[in-house]
Amino acid sequence: HHMIYFMGIDPGLNKTGVGIVGWNGGKLSYAGHALVKSNAKATFIDRLGSIISGVQAELGKYELHSAAVEDVFYSVNAKSALLLGQTRGAILATLIAAKLPAVCEFTALQIKQAVVGYGKAEKEQVRKMVELHLNIEMGTKLPMDISDALACAICLAQNQTSRAY
Amino acid sequence: HHMIYFMGIDPGLNKTGVGIVGWNGGKLSYAGHALVKSNAKATFIDRLGSIISGVQAELGKYELHSAAVEDVFYSVNAKSALLLGQTRGAILATLIAAKLPAVCEFTALQIKQAVVGYGKAEKEQVRKMVELHLNIEMGTKLPMDISDALACAICLAQNQTSRAY
Repeated sequence: HHMIYFMGIDPGLNKTGVGIVGWNGGKLSYAGHALVKSNAKATFIDRLGSIISGVQAELGKYELHSAAVEDVFYSVNAKSALLLGQTRGAILATLIAAKLPAVCEFTALQIKQAVVGYGKAEKEQVRKMVELHLNIEMGTKLPMDISDALACAICLAQNQTSRAY
Repeated sequence: HHMIYFMGIDPGLNKTGVGIVGWNGGKLSYAGHALVKSNAKATFIDRLGSIISGVQAELGKYELHSAAVEDVFYSVNAKSALLLGQTRGAILATLIAAKLPAVCEFTALQIKQAVVGYGKAEKEQVRKMVELHLNIEMGTKLPMDISDALACAICLAQNQTSRAY
């Protein structure tokens, strides 16, 4: 088996977490991550542009099987929902434009269920299980946005590969 | 003067209005429009894909000076804000990816102020003024989504051209 790659994305206008896992037919492994930031002082269009460029740069590094973006159902209010929604839409458009074989969405509940086996797991539990799945030990050096993105990638890999790993 | 083109977009997941106006250095004219729809029974990703493809098709038809998307501040609730936000973000990402010289945003208030001279104008007034600006007579055959998109294009043209027309 050769290695195939899955990308998970935790979207946000301030910072977007990108995590990539590899799958060689037998088990999952850590492949890479990026924390894509935008300058809070820039215009909204320029901030979206920064997030898009950062995601595109990561897309170019791997021969991806597919990518998934964490779904968001709730938000503090309509204004923050609009900002987060636009960021997520811009990221989805970037993945669609890259003509990946598949672009998926998973809710936080689905991701936690896949990674921890429990849909209401705390973020810290998710981080520990991500490390166990990928056989890495970064502890608190693994930012939550990256941990969440890697969890999304693991969920995608489980979803797309027919056999459990 | 040769003709230069401005695109205005009224974003929506069900239907997105696209309007294009031409400017020859002396006055504005109607150049084209499209009502881009998505299939309500398709997945959200496929629906975004339809909107993106439709906007890309229009981008390919004109040598655009710039494009603008109507801003949205309010929404019925956070859920609809997330859907509208994602659609708007996907459209902005498509314009940014097309490497247009400028991608802009205008609020409904700015657009109405530019087209009608009154920020709280009714949609019907906007439609009539759009027809007057562009010297067209379509009456009720001009859908509101297109009228709003053309109004956004007129606002953009006024904003980007130094002289009043």
